[in-house]
Amino acid sequence: MKTLTDPSLPTQPPAELLEALNYCRRPLIIAHLAPDGDAIGSLLALGHMLHRLGKDPILACQDPPPASLRFLPGSDRITNDVRDYAVDQIIAVDSSDPTRMGSIYDPGEHKNLPLLVIDHHVTNVAFGQINWVEPATAATAQMMYDLALALDIEIDTDLATCMLTGMVTDTRGFRTNNTTARVLDIAAALMQAGASLNRIMERTLNSHSFNLIQLWGRALETVEFDRGVIHATNSLVMREGLDGIVRPEGLTSFILGAYEAKAAVVFTELPENKVECSFRARPGQNIAEVAFALGGGGHPLAAGCTISGMLPEIKELVLSRLIEQVLSS
Amino acid sequence: MKTLTDPSLPTQPPAELLEALNYCRRPLIIAHLAPDGDAIGSLLALGHMLHRLGKDPILACQDPPPASLRFLPGSDRITNDVRDYAVDQIIAVDSSDPTRMGSIYDPGEHKNLPLLVIDHHVTNVAFGQINWVEPATAATAQMMYDLALALDIEIDTDLATCMLTGMVTDTRGFRTNNTTARVLDIAAALMQAGASLNRIMERTLNSHSFNLIQLWGRALETVEFDRGVIHATNSLVMREGLDGIVRPEGLTSFILGAYEAKAAVVFTELPENKVECSFRARPGQNIAEVAFALGGGGHPLAAGCTISGMLPEIKELVLSRLIEQVLSS
Repeated sequence: MKTLTDPSLPTQPPAELLEALNYCRRPLIIAHLAPDGDAIGSLLALGHMLHRLGKDPILACQDPPPASLRFLPGSDRITNDVRDYAVDQIIAVDSSDPTRMGSIYDPGEHKNLPLLVIDHHVTNVAFGQINWVEPATAATAQMMYDLALALDIEIDTDLATCMLTGMVTDTRGFRTNNTTARVLDIAAALMQAGASLNRIMERTLNSHSFNLIQLWGRALETVEFDRGVIHATNSLVMREGLDGIVRPEGLTSFILGAYEAKAAVVFTELPENKVECSFRARPGQNIAEVAFALGGGGHPLAAGCTISGMLPEIKELVLSRLIEQVLSS
Repeated sequence: MKTLTDPSLPTQPPAELLEALNYCRRPLIIAHLAPDGDAIGSLLALGHMLHRLGKDPILACQDPPPASLRFLPGSDRITNDVRDYAVDQIIAVDSSDPTRMGSIYDPGEHKNLPLLVIDHHVTNVAFGQINWVEPATAATAQMMYDLALALDIEIDTDLATCMLTGMVTDTRGFRTNNTTARVLDIAAALMQAGASLNRIMERTLNSHSFNLIQLWGRALETVEFDRGVIHATNSLVMREGLDGIVRPEGLTSFILGAYEAKAAVVFTELPENKVECSFRARPGQNIAEVAFALGGGGHPLAAGCTISGMLPEIKELVLSRLIEQVLSS
């Protein structure tokens, strides 16, 4: 069995990846659809580095960067229309399977070009000709830092800002359990190179719309606790007057913070009698089993599923499964 | 004018402080009343270190450590009754003035003993015979790390856990703008020494009572936005049925996260017609002026005041001052 890379050492990009990066002239770099901070941070960091190597990279993503990431240098150069560009290489970043590239990857146009994959997800299906996958890293942006070391590229403020943003967002501000000492060492080096940790934290982790704050308030009014499981509901009615928002982002983690809670779930009612269930649990639990049994998936401590049916019945079903799981663990 | 210490270098405890620590036999270490993570983390770290030097330190605090800090090694040894101990030195940690020592410091008993002060607050009034104050550090626990270097004490898991807890809590998880690269370097070293960053983050920053979650919900129902100022109200009526909780901790920072907000205030109605106002602001603002003019105090980006009067009138007064401040800056 292959063990994960020692997280205290830099990861090593494969020699063939370094060769391919040196060889290309106009690579198309693709971040995954519905991009997060690590997708955009890694996309921009790789773009900056290839530009520094004298290349003419095209930076693409099916969906635009969220407002909270538009402070990143180069984010205005990300496009969702690459039809006019003759590119000679495809690089997928932070994407665990080809569907994550969305509409940017055009099999007709792109299937004969070399496809490189750079990703940190343990679930990566290795869909490229060259696959550099490091599941022991906390973010793909952390791999970008190691790539800069391997390519001997000096890290300036812009590059440092993009890398640190990817690392801060994917670790939720250094809070995930894959935040190693090396993650903090790299973060310190990126600050020395000019990145402002405070600005990145403020922009990405402490920025939300007024509507989100209101939705939190309405959903928190419904919070209940039952035998180790804390839950809240976000119904269609609650979202009336709150345009442009569906999920109360961050709420499941927040309610799991209750001393007594071992697992948390937020129910989001969707149109056409569907309910999305977002699960979080404390170490020692395994809520992925519950999510999987209900047609969803995820990790032991963070999982989810979407079920067809009426909200009250689905809540009853899901809560009984979760309570059973928590009581038996 | 004295400049702040270079934050990229270790701070240096004064030679007379090191001498006094080596000389004492049974020092009384006092953390400030209503202790937070830095007070308790620093108290325990200093206790561990002095114990390692062969001393018999007494660890004291007027108020017990909050539940979220009771995982810290040695926290069960903290006492609030020191009358039976014959001590030969007093060390105040993380306390900016003598009133912060609360009932532990007994002028009659203690006034002839050497008083040492170890603190990072810029407002420290230097009330000891020996005062080691380092306002450029992010936490008193960071000074404890530098003290361990100066005393050549090896940092084991327990010591590392206490130090890292102080640093994590006082920086709200590395989010304050005094979180330097050196803070992250020290945090990495403490993880290498055995501290679990993830456990500390979970216990201290993502732990709250079910009642607090409910109070957040009720207060968020009142959230409003007016010309750059976002505000919420926590009235006496809202707290009915929520025993043991007064303030919706963390709520002011959360609502300040609204994209549009430049300043935030949460009004907490207290018995006998008093209202506590908690202010937070984004960089560039100075809400300390508003707090000061209303009889309170604080820092440019975090301040507060308590005003006598009826809630509706106080809200109107405070909001008009805050809006004026925000519009003029």
